[in-house]
Amino acid sequence: MTQDKYQTSAEDSLIARYFKPLATDPGALGLVDDAAILASSGDDIVVTTDAVVEGVHYLAADPPDTIARKALRVNLSDLAAKGAVPAGFVLTLALRSKEDSWLRPFADALGEDAKSFGCPLLGGDTVSTPGPQMISITAFGRVPKGRMVGRTGARAGDRILVTGTIGDAALGLDVLTGGAVAGALMSDSAARDLLVSRYRMPQPRNALAQAVREHASAAMDVSDGLAGDLAKLCAASGVSAAVEVASVPLSAAAAGLIARNVVGVETLLAGGDDYEVLCTVPPAQSDGLIAAGRAVGVAVSVIGTIIAGPERPRFLDGQGQELALKRLSYSHF
Amino acid sequence: MTQDKYQTSAEDSLIARYFKPLATDPGALGLVDDAAILASSGDDIVVTTDAVVEGVHYLAADPPDTIARKALRVNLSDLAAKGAVPAGFVLTLALRSKEDSWLRPFADALGEDAKSFGCPLLGGDTVSTPGPQMISITAFGRVPKGRMVGRTGARAGDRILVTGTIGDAALGLDVLTGGAVAGALMSDSAARDLLVSRYRMPQPRNALAQAVREHASAAMDVSDGLAGDLAKLCAASGVSAAVEVASVPLSAAAAGLIARNVVGVETLLAGGDDYEVLCTVPPAQSDGLIAAGRAVGVAVSVIGTIIAGPERPRFLDGQGQELALKRLSYSHF
Repeated sequence: MTQDKYQTSAEDSLIARYFKPLATDPGALGLVDDAAILASSGDDIVVTTDAVVEGVHYLAADPPDTIARKALRVNLSDLAAKGAVPAGFVLTLALRSKEDSWLRPFADALGEDAKSFGCPLLGGDTVSTPGPQMISITAFGRVPKGRMVGRTGARAGDRILVTGTIGDAALGLDVLTGGAVAGALMSDSAARDLLVSRYRMPQPRNALAQAVREHASAAMDVSDGLAGDLAKLCAASGVSAAVEVASVPLSAAAAGLIARNVVGVETLLAGGDDYEVLCTVPPAQSDGLIAAGRAVGVAVSVIGTIIAGPERPRFLDGQGQELALKRLSYSHF
Repeated sequence: MTQDKYQTSAEDSLIARYFKPLATDPGALGLVDDAAILASSGDDIVVTTDAVVEGVHYLAADPPDTIARKALRVNLSDLAAKGAVPAGFVLTLALRSKEDSWLRPFADALGEDAKSFGCPLLGGDTVSTPGPQMISITAFGRVPKGRMVGRTGARAGDRILVTGTIGDAALGLDVLTGGAVAGALMSDSAARDLLVSRYRMPQPRNALAQAVREHASAAMDVSDGLAGDLAKLCAASGVSAAVEVASVPLSAAAAGLIARNVVGVETLLAGGDDYEVLCTVPPAQSDGLIAAGRAVGVAVSVIGTIIAGPERPRFLDGQGQELALKRLSYSHF
């Protein structure tokens, strides 16, 4: 992203108008350079990249401000799960048009989130596309040297913890697309709004990053579905897991839909878009992480235990019977 | 990008098959994590991001291997101009389909370039899109602390230097789209091939990065057109420039087309996609940069001088008359 006083192109003008105000970090060089600088600090730099595509990760009718927040927050969520403090991000924006009515709320919301999460815009690229709009963000965080929380450290006996509630976003998408949930909640606008908000605007748990770094043996964020993501973590660590489904934290809205048989629990466990932290913690330290959550107003729940073995994680009902999940997560292909 | 032994999704399978072999750096964590690590080294990290969109930056009929190389090389070119040594890249791939006939040559070529330029894949995201394919790359380089070559250091009296030749890629695009150049070169397949190759497969000047860092007061790569990019550099430095158009290095093919009046010089100066290094160098050091170029087989040409003042750079013909350029560069909007 570059901007100059000659306004040699409409692209430069667009960047100057909407995005230069977000480039508050000295390393962004005021967007006058093609490149940005992450200054040497003795910390490791954690890098994560996630893209959102219109019609795939968000709906064309979603408000531009929530699209902006979701695009950044899915990346902030990765940094939180890695125990990293946000350092900045670069943005690739593939636009069909440059209407102020879309770009203004998009840029304003992106700037608000960048400020509130301490993650300034460092640079980027704006391109035109004849197809669906797409926002690709690469975000950077800092951790003390060698201290990024990986996926490979889970050990038998570790507790499995998850933040917030699971499955709301999948239900919110169902509301927006007029599915069974929309029908069941016809007269409950509060529940509908909550679920839609969870789909459109993740709440990344960056306030817990330091506690995750201090306590977790392994961690990741739940983006594709709790079941599938836990399977990935277990595979990376060479372990298995037993999850008590009754312990998986649900919102009141989600619990009500389950109780009324509107959706099955599989929809929640494999639904995706949760952007909560899933981590494993040695037993003696689970109270520490739960307390850290309480201090910042984030529920942290124990949902199961890591066990030895190569088997896929098992999800157990109240009688200890394994649920057969037909699918574990969302897949793009 | 993540991959696990359960192959819980086709996306994971795709990543494992095509991209895991490219993730040779320890910081890539074998793509088993959502995040990658750029280890602390005492160097500053230079970050650059550029996307290529089907139908905009490359043609749908372009071979997948050259699309891959172009996507990476436009970013490597930025690192070269900043004086940075490549450290790795993350890839966002928005795919319509996952045909092996496209992905295999794409991934193989990307891996070859990653290896030959010393810039390994660190991570990424693969998403589906119903629209044009898009490849967004964020690349990282290292420079000694505080030594990134910016755009703001050009001073009156500095020489303006450029690597390679200018304008070939714009002519190559004209060949591919059946324009006047295609007609004029109907019987000269060697010239056509050279120009098309310059469009499809930039030659980033990473071999000159250290010399740029040692000699240049300001630098950028020429991506949107020499005229517009020089205007940006001058604006960032608060200076003006005088360029002798006759000194702008042209390939024999480009010079022939100019001589035959098939295209005007403006097409070359504002054409874009050159991916050459444009830099300013104190007079006493221009010979040093030229010699460094000679040592690695890259022509480095003096094309003009930085002068004081706020005016837009002037492009002068053999009689010292200013050329009136109707446009300076390619714009996406």
